Amino acid sequence: MLTMDNPTALPRYQQLADDLGEAMRSGVLRPGDRLPSVRETCRERGLSPATVFHAYGQLEAEGLIEARPRSGYFVCTPRRALRAPPRAAPASSTAQPVAVSALVFDLLGSTSRPGVVPLGSAFPAAHLFPFEALARSGARTMRKLGPAQITGALLSGDDGLRQALRRRYALHGVALADDELVITNGAMEALNLCLQAVTQPGDVVVVESPTFYAALHALERLHLQAVEVRTDPQEGVDLAALEALLAAQPVAACWFMPSFQNPLGALMPAARKQALVELLARHRVPLIEDDVYGELHAGARRPLPAKAFDRDGGVLHCASFSKCLAPGYRVGWAAAGRYTAQVQRLKMMSSLATALPPQMALADYLGQGVYDRHLRQLRAALAAQQRRALRLIERHFPAGTRVTRPSGGYFLWLDLPEAVDGVTLHRRAMALSISTAPGVLFSADARFAHHLRLNVGHPDDPRVDAALRTLGELACEMAAGR
Amino acid sequence: MLTMDNPTALPRYQQLADDLGEAMRSGVLRPGDRLPSVRETCRERGLSPATVFHAYGQLEAEGLIEARPRSGYFVCTPRRALRAPPRAAPASSTAQPVAVSALVFDLLGSTSRPGVVPLGSAFPAAHLFPFEALARSGARTMRKLGPAQITGALLSGDDGLRQALRRRYALHGVALADDELVITNGAMEALNLCLQAVTQPGDVVVVESPTFYAALHALERLHLQAVEVRTDPQEGVDLAALEALLAAQPVAACWFMPSFQNPLGALMPAARKQALVELLARHRVPLIEDDVYGELHAGARRPLPAKAFDRDGGVLHCASFSKCLAPGYRVGWAAAGRYTAQVQRLKMMSSLATALPPQMALADYLGQGVYDRHLRQLRAALAAQQRRALRLIERHFPAGTRVTRPSGGYFLWLDLPEAVDGVTLHRRAMALSISTAPGVLFSADARFAHHLRLNVGHPDDPRVDAALRTLGELACEMAAGR
Repeated sequence: MLTMDNPTALPRYQQLADDLGEAMRSGVLRPGDRLPSVRETCRERGLSPATVFHAYGQLEAEGLIEARPRSGYFVCTPRRALRAPPRAAPASSTAQPVAVSALVFDLLGSTSRPGVVPLGSAFPAAHLFPFEALARSGARTMRKLGPAQITGALLSGDDGLRQALRRRYALHGVALADDELVITNGAMEALNLCLQAVTQPGDVVVVESPTFYAALHALERLHLQAVEVRTDPQEGVDLAALEALLAAQPVAACWFMPSFQNPLGALMPAARKQALVELLARHRVPLIEDDVYGELHAGARRPLPAKAFDRDGGVLHCASFSKCLAPGYRVGWAAAGRYTAQVQRLKMMSSLATALPPQMALADYLGQGVYDRHLRQLRAALAAQQRRALRLIERHFPAGTRVTRPSGGYFLWLDLPEAVDGVTLHRRAMALSISTAPGVLFSADARFAHHLRLNVGHPDDPRVDAALRTLGELACEMAAGR
Repeated sequence: MLTMDNPTALPRYQQLADDLGEAMRSGVLRPGDRLPSVRETCRERGLSPATVFHAYGQLEAEGLIEARPRSGYFVCTPRRALRAPPRAAPASSTAQPVAVSALVFDLLGSTSRPGVVPLGSAFPAAHLFPFEALARSGARTMRKLGPAQITGALLSGDDGLRQALRRRYALHGVALADDELVITNGAMEALNLCLQAVTQPGDVVVVESPTFYAALHALERLHLQAVEVRTDPQEGVDLAALEALLAAQPVAACWFMPSFQNPLGALMPAARKQALVELLARHRVPLIEDDVYGELHAGARRPLPAKAFDRDGGVLHCASFSKCLAPGYRVGWAAAGRYTAQVQRLKMMSSLATALPPQMALADYLGQGVYDRHLRQLRAALAAQQRRALRLIERHFPAGTRVTRPSGGYFLWLDLPEAVDGVTLHRRAMALSISTAPGVLFSADARFAHHLRLNVGHPDDPRVDAALRTLGELACEMAAGR
């Protein structure tokens, strides 16, 4: 268990299971190979027999290895291999008004019902967050919230938080102007305000394909038209396709997630981000950069945001603490470049100001110097859970299934055989109290009918392994025409 | 001083000063009359000489009485009498797109500068609010905010708060449906969501004349057209004028403040509210009811909201704690009748959810049973300050000035002589670090050029008396053509 009460790295049995799983994935251990004996492994890694049995037991439960009486443990023959990543959607779409169906809200609502295994959820497991430390910060700062704070900080946000954010931007290689930050009610409000600041009803906005459904909702709410641009599951937006779109029609803005895109998990390489920013600057098209997953990198360093390459203030960078530190606190922000004044004005017009108590609690917490330790633990827990989920999916989903293997975030994107309809699979799974996010949610023109986004951000939920197995079995039945 | 540390009623000297001021206003004491001697007053009211001297000294400082050597205190002859209320705007306007000028934002921004006397502010003095008690509630509840709360309460809001709100509605004679409340980031977000839920770009919305500038901002943001309806400074919206407007064109919604309207302070009598709701129900036009001042009544009972007369779910009632309990906490709500599902959906689309820590703090505070005591103190402080400000305005503003005398809220609306331009007066006052809210802010077609809204919600600010005097002198100069 990885919680604030146990701030070490992964448990040893989990490390061992992960290492063996990786050896199987990479081909170092192949089907039919015998695993080292428990005694050998104890000696080699300095572990107790109980720890090794725990790890082997888990791999056995996942169907990756089997115990043969008096012979030891052997790597199973996988029923099917899912090495290939999903294919990119075939082409960019034409501009069209967005009308997200009521079905979407039903689907979203159903994922938050208690008792449902939340594979369709957009949030990681809440127990991964340091609520106790945040509560201490909150209790301490509530007492400082008085008349002076109200008058000064109401419109602009808490000064301490603004300074802490600017320091983190600087650490990540982005120098912000003094007054560039607008504190908002979560990233969702920041993104909505930025989108409204750079568009008029009827305008065309380019989004990724697939794209985060909240982007589609925002376009619908503001009466905008969406064009979906071909997006590679590994490297993000196809710049040639984007350039063609920009040449073909007036475009008011792009709304992209260059780091750990939702739902693909794609990470644009830094050079590609730079080329994107330069391309858009040449066309004077603002980039709304949704960067809520940037802190959840599995690799050693946080990827640079596109904002790091912004020279003329055309990048409106939006992020929040909701996915990496404090869900429920609803503190987000926009660093809105040359549009900051418009965004600030829209903020005043639409919700006036952001609640101060959560901002002050976060500013105090950030001042404790423990945030990065929390992030390291969170990243390790999410990466381990991704490996575990991939093993289960590889074992239990039908042949021909393709799955992403993102280097950050906590989503997997599955490209299922043609015979498997995502919404039908979602409904059958919901009947068994398992939620998913079917692919049609992630497009304005109902592409991705055979896709699923799965949340693998719920380690330590004992129902998740069984739910992934069940989901795979349902998909196999559908693939077999049942 | 009226604070949580001194939870009694008004200080005795202030009660005496108020009583004498009222006697002068009502004509019981007339110009030239001698006041009872200090000794007589001590005996009659059971006060110490120091208390009586304090009260007389204050009335003298305000220019209402004068001390004559060896004769006692006498009522001064007022330089001018301002008994008349402002006139209603002459007629309703025609529909027009709203474009609030950049000037508005400059004006609004300037009022929050430190060192500026905040007569243009929209908030009462922050020291009037029970921050210490709220902080205790906040510290207590922060510890309860954990994984379970996050999952359940994120979209719908804190259950304890929703229950406390429903109880208060029931107390005030309004039975809400179980799931009718949408918790929002302040009333401003609630109003914006309600407006969007019932309109499409280009639609016509009826607002009061004058109207709260945020309503105009919301219309501008959503590309709506405003029609201003004649509004009586005492009794609110002119129903005959409204009926004519409804007959003349399709109307998508009305956005009104039936209780203590901003800026007029008008209170629609209950029968008029009922007639309004029935008229709109006949036309199937939804009423967005902005009721953020309802708790700030000077009279004995809270006025019924229009929502109390709603039979078919056509009233979207919006309110918050920002003006009566917890500024900076940004907790508001909508009871949106038959539009609740749309409002909830728009909330999800535009900011997802409302911060939980402030909601939980407020739920805990409301459970302490001290809210009504706080409200009684707040109302008494605001009423006393209104009386004091009226005396100063009557004494120092130019002849021909008309001023409201609202029975709730903390705004006065001044109708100045033709020669006094509100924006010019505002600028001259700002040069002396006194903010005001000029009348042009409160209309889409720049009516009310000779009007000012003054915030009289800042008792105990020693600069306010002098600022009112200075403002009156500036207005006198302008009235005299200088």
